[in-house]
Amino acid sequence: MGSIYGKIFQISTFGESHGVAVGVVVQGCPAGISFDLEFIQSELDRRKPGQSRITTQRKEADSIEVVSGVFEGKTTGTPIAMLVWNGDQRSKDYSHIADQFRPSHADYTYFAKYGLRDYRGGGRSSARETVARVAAGALAKLVLSQLGVKITAYVSQVGTLKLSTPVEQLDLSLTESNAVRCPDPVLADQMFQYIDDIRKQGDSVGGVVSAYITGCPVGLGEPVFDKLHAELGKAMLSINAVKGFEYGSGFDGVEKKGSEHNDVIVKEADGTVRTLTNHSGGIQGGISNGEPIYFRVGFKPVATIMQDQDSINEKGDKITVSGKGRHDPCVVPRAVPIVEAMAAIVILDFYLRNRVIQMPS
Amino acid sequence: MGSIYGKIFQISTFGESHGVAVGVVVQGCPAGISFDLEFIQSELDRRKPGQSRITTQRKEADSIEVVSGVFEGKTTGTPIAMLVWNGDQRSKDYSHIADQFRPSHADYTYFAKYGLRDYRGGGRSSARETVARVAAGALAKLVLSQLGVKITAYVSQVGTLKLSTPVEQLDLSLTESNAVRCPDPVLADQMFQYIDDIRKQGDSVGGVVSAYITGCPVGLGEPVFDKLHAELGKAMLSINAVKGFEYGSGFDGVEKKGSEHNDVIVKEADGTVRTLTNHSGGIQGGISNGEPIYFRVGFKPVATIMQDQDSINEKGDKITVSGKGRHDPCVVPRAVPIVEAMAAIVILDFYLRNRVIQMPS
Amino acid sequence: MGSIYGKIFQISTFGESHGVAVGVVVQGCPAGISFDLEFIQSELDRRKPGQSRITTQRKEADSIEVVSGVFEGKTTGTPIAMLVWNGDQRSKDYSHIADQFRPSHADYTYFAKYGLRDYRGGGRSSARETVARVAAGALAKLVLSQLGVKITAYVSQVGTLKLSTPVEQLDLSLTESNAVRCPDPVLADQMFQYIDDIRKQGDSVGGVVSAYITGCPVGLGEPVFDKLHAELGKAMLSINAVKGFEYGSGFDGVEKKGSEHNDVIVKEADGTVRTLTNHSGGIQGGISNGEPIYFRVGFKPVATIMQDQDSINEKGDKITVSGKGRHDPCVVPRAVPIVEAMAAIVILDFYLRNRVIQMPS
Amino acid sequence: MGSIYGKIFQISTFGESHGVAVGVVVQGCPAGISFDLEFIQSELDRRKPGQSRITTQRKEADSIEVVSGVFEGKTTGTPIAMLVWNGDQRSKDYSHIADQFRPSHADYTYFAKYGLRDYRGGGRSSARETVARVAAGALAKLVLSQLGVKITAYVSQVGTLKLSTPVEQLDLSLTESNAVRCPDPVLADQMFQYIDDIRKQGDSVGGVVSAYITGCPVGLGEPVFDKLHAELGKAMLSINAVKGFEYGSGFDGVEKKGSEHNDVIVKEADGTVRTLTNHSGGIQGGISNGEPIYFRVGFKPVATIMQDQDSINEKGDKITVSGKGRHDPCVVPRAVPIVEAMAAIVILDFYLRNRVIQMPS
Repeated sequence: MGSIYGKIFQISTFGESHGVAVGVVVQGCPAGISFDLEFIQSELDRRKPGQSRITTQRKEADSIEVVSGVFEGKTTGTPIAMLVWNGDQRSKDYSHIADQFRPSHADYTYFAKYGLRDYRGGGRSSARETVARVAAGALAKLVLSQLGVKITAYVSQVGTLKLSTPVEQLDLSLTESNAVRCPDPVLADQMFQYIDDIRKQGDSVGGVVSAYITGCPVGLGEPVFDKLHAELGKAMLSINAVKGFEYGSGFDGVEKKGSEHNDVIVKEADGTVRTLTNHSGGIQGGISNGEPIYFRVGFKPVATIMQDQDSINEKGDKITVSGKGRHDPCVVPRAVPIVEAMAAIVILDFYLRNRVIQMPS
Repeated sequence: MGSIYGKIFQISTFGESHGVAVGVVVQGCPAGISFDLEFIQSELDRRKPGQSRITTQRKEADSIEVVSGVFEGKTTGTPIAMLVWNGDQRSKDYSHIADQFRPSHADYTYFAKYGLRDYRGGGRSSARETVARVAAGALAKLVLSQLGVKITAYVSQVGTLKLSTPVEQLDLSLTESNAVRCPDPVLADQMFQYIDDIRKQGDSVGGVVSAYITGCPVGLGEPVFDKLHAELGKAMLSINAVKGFEYGSGFDGVEKKGSEHNDVIVKEADGTVRTLTNHSGGIQGGISNGEPIYFRVGFKPVATIMQDQDSINEKGDKITVSGKGRHDPCVVPRAVPIVEAMAAIVILDFYLRNRVIQMPS
Repeated sequence: MGSIYGKIFQISTFGESHGVAVGVVVQGCPAGISFDLEFIQSELDRRKPGQSRITTQRKEADSIEVVSGVFEGKTTGTPIAMLVWNGDQRSKDYSHIADQFRPSHADYTYFAKYGLRDYRGGGRSSARETVARVAAGALAKLVLSQLGVKITAYVSQVGTLKLSTPVEQLDLSLTESNAVRCPDPVLADQMFQYIDDIRKQGDSVGGVVSAYITGCPVGLGEPVFDKLHAELGKAMLSINAVKGFEYGSGFDGVEKKGSEHNDVIVKEADGTVRTLTNHSGGIQGGISNGEPIYFRVGFKPVATIMQDQDSINEKGDKITVSGKGRHDPCVVPRAVPIVEAMAAIVILDFYLRNRVIQMPS
Repeated sequence: MGSIYGKIFQISTFGESHGVAVGVVVQGCPAGISFDLEFIQSELDRRKPGQSRITTQRKEADSIEVVSGVFEGKTTGTPIAMLVWNGDQRSKDYSHIADQFRPSHADYTYFAKYGLRDYRGGGRSSARETVARVAAGALAKLVLSQLGVKITAYVSQVGTLKLSTPVEQLDLSLTESNAVRCPDPVLADQMFQYIDDIRKQGDSVGGVVSAYITGCPVGLGEPVFDKLHAELGKAMLSINAVKGFEYGSGFDGVEKKGSEHNDVIVKEADGTVRTLTNHSGGIQGGISNGEPIYFRVGFKPVATIMQDQDSINEKGDKITVSGKGRHDPCVVPRAVPIVEAMAAIVILDFYLRNRVIQMPS
């Protein structure tokens, strides 16, 4: 349980960090979509390690293989299974960490829950699982792009370095022009230096990914529990290392008065209903109102650091956990496509759910 | 769709603000639980309007009626339906607001989504729906109390007035001793005055509810998508007016380094595995680790204010929406039992899910 | 668990035979449907006891009360809760049967499963629960009638008395003209006499309900597990006392050769694709092909008889269970609207599911 | 949609007949199960083609590859993905049948539903998908065998040749001793001859698979919709070519009187509660009562025959469909392990569901 997401566009992921492969089965993808394998691969490439010296130097090709559900270049309406093989990592020796509980990792909780665990590289709890999310999310993006929906994420904070420019004044096309994925090139440079310093210290640092979604029709999201922002929140909080989610005015909005915070509704000359401000973040009563949807996702400093740390092993003995290997000092640059992927999965699912609520005319 | 929550302890709510009744059907409640109707009613009383001059003065008795699933004082394992009748509100005249879209309410989005809407008091989008959540949550609390789990929420911020005392240093038993539900009596007084001033201005203000959960066993929560904090996040974000959720170190943790943020694991003399710090908020890899679980929920200033506001109606004409009636200037005092209820529903659901993951010995 | 049915048009039922009420919450009903309360009541009237001397003489008004989801005569897209109150039956004394396990009832299995049970009239296991199905099914029928789908069921067997006329040669409008609900008036008379004799013996007898559905578009049903006939089968088998389900050629088809059984496909002058025969029962590969859908549902003789029977009580002592009260000697006449209701729920659910599988043009 | 089955032990299958592979992701398998790959492979071998001259002569190795969820020989509680590669069948030329609608196949309904289809060997509608069911079912059997549950199926009818011996008088260990999988060796010989004759005629014939399950605890199955037999019925009806399902006394029970049909309950000397007869098929009120569970599954003659048949193509032109290739004249011998697999999946799912209904003592 726990590895299925979505109600209609539904993804089921599997695979361990150092197992044979990671993969996903997508159910409920509409039939007849042109399946752009190159695009899906390019999204995986945005996520993959080794993109610059501030990401982990592990080498993973992360080539996608499509196993089912696509015929003559189009989706057929049947389940689409996609696999990424894990390469030759099975040969490594992990016995020295087999019984170690690393601080702030899931080693102890998995062991306590299941009575045993795949200790190689975190097993199922590893962020390697997000390969499957990016593949499925890329497919969702393909469908959404035909519907005019555009999902963009970017790094807006690394440690204490914050991007405070309002999103409307940013040139989001610059996001992919630097290794940090921050659309402000000057700040991106500072962030890069900061992460590189952290890396040299063998330490890690947190950050924030912001997302901005345009082109959503009015009406996405369901009343009560499955509100659009509640589902976006769950999707984001399910990404490794995420500690917080806020949308629209978020926690800052808490301090506002209603008279400042309410978004006045107007009808434009072309008949479009708009709001003069957008503290609501494009969502009212859990349902999209046609304005841009925006939210922020907070990531903690990753638990893996290249320093010695105290801990215990399975028997309860005190041990020293030594940091070794190749890891990300800050996950947010590589988290950008993951945030986009999960947002795409949520939005497409609601898009499809929305097609059943009124009768055909 | 959208009105069902939970996988095993599953609630299905129904009812409109000014309809006949609001209610809930609870499926998956274990059999044999002593059904304490008085306790459930007392939780509804904590939520109900008219508790002090800083909450809405509407009079709603909110008496619970149990329709099924309980026999001779015990749950039978079959669906438990509970109803709260809405009193005589059906007689009111709402025709003057029938075609108005109130700013930052769900009027426009519901209308656009469904093509029609129950305009009386917000219909299904009204926070009156949370009556059903509190009833179901009270039942979940009853079960959890037998399992040693204790869920407490309290107001930790109103506007810019913040409670910065760490939760371990608070006396949470004081929470219910004041109308604001803030466990710091001095700050509670200031918050009360502030809310009362806002009320006199005909305005509203936001706030934060914090939650603190103790007694959870290790192992609650599922890998990948159904992480414990992801589900708590969705549950909280689904409550009316919520704009943000963070757990453990939350957005503040973003600025930390891994070496500061990691929680060192130790084994105590009695064999209990603990962490020396708890930046993880009691959850590692999405699974409870036995430490206290804590999180914060940010509420916006409610959209209903007693001031004139510009807007449009269904036809798109410019109108003035006049604030009238009796509403809450700040929702957080009454939101405390709602946050507790949703937390209880999530925790109990994972508790039950957890019973199927290992084989019986 | 177990009391929810459907994926999009989803019903959640509750209530015990002698509890306060039985009811249903319907989620996923499209918005804007004219809610015809009179029609729903008329379907409940077809199911209710006391219609003739061959059905139980219990008096239950079975008046429906709508609690939510309907506004100004139309469905709003939010959950529709409907209740039928159980009258004054709570005052009866059931203590003499409180610890008895009646033969071929669910008394023992419920007790063993839950550790306790509502022993009054079978509690949740009573066929009184089907009131809720008929109410929800009537709503589904209302929607389907707008889509041109017509669902008709009728009694085709009582004991050894079988209706062997092919359905195409029957005048189904005669079904409601007799108390047995058999469209062959002569056979209906014989069946009536037979059931009446069984009744006088204090015994019961089984029967078969056949269903015939026209106007379904091509394409209802999903590949693999959620085949149209698999879901119809589950829905029918979930009705109290059902022991078998077959569709199209059914068990008789087993004896056929492929060359006899295959349905030749043709295109008619008006462009309609048809099959020359319909051994497939309107379903190929689990998906409707536009031909009439037909199936048969076998009901056992009801377990309640007016004769003394050996059994045991909770303690395991041998007892004699005495038949008392007012019960149906043969359930099939009253099962006709229940079969129709469940078929309507299944068909409408697939109809709505079908709207998400292709992209909008 | 449609390719997921189960609530807790949940399988998600994928793959087309002539695609790259068929496979399954199993969620909710308990952790710590010894994963017996050899046993799983042996179950696939029981299903695979080419076992005798009365099954299709296609050559498929059907070797299972485990991709995730197993570590050091044990299940880890995370999703278990299993694949069977389809060999070199991609090279074949199917263009001559690309636009043909074969009689009583799913060609037309898939095309109408999705607007396109994988025409190679039936694509997703092919019985090749059952490879995935057998793999998942073998895993379920492994778990159930530790719990003392034994599931056995056998061929009880081919065409008009019926096995009428009561199951208690059969030696089910003989089932696997012949190619037909009928436990009566004499009848098995006749069935073999009959199928072989049908094969020589280029025709096909239907049959019945019976199942017999022992060792189930009391209490499996849920009230109302998810009755044990309703779920078994859906699972069986979802298998390719199935037209009917009956359990216990089934359609024959329809003709009985209640006084003949009711199963008298007794308590044996050792404290076991039993019934003197078992017309109920081990299930009362949808819940297992501890007696053996038995049911019958009717399969139609397969649609593929080696004879010319009239039909139409996508354009609606009349065509002749020519039977070519290697196909099963009668599917029931190879359906035996599929019936067992689906039964195991259903039983294990209820077994796990049953662990959440009472509180721990």
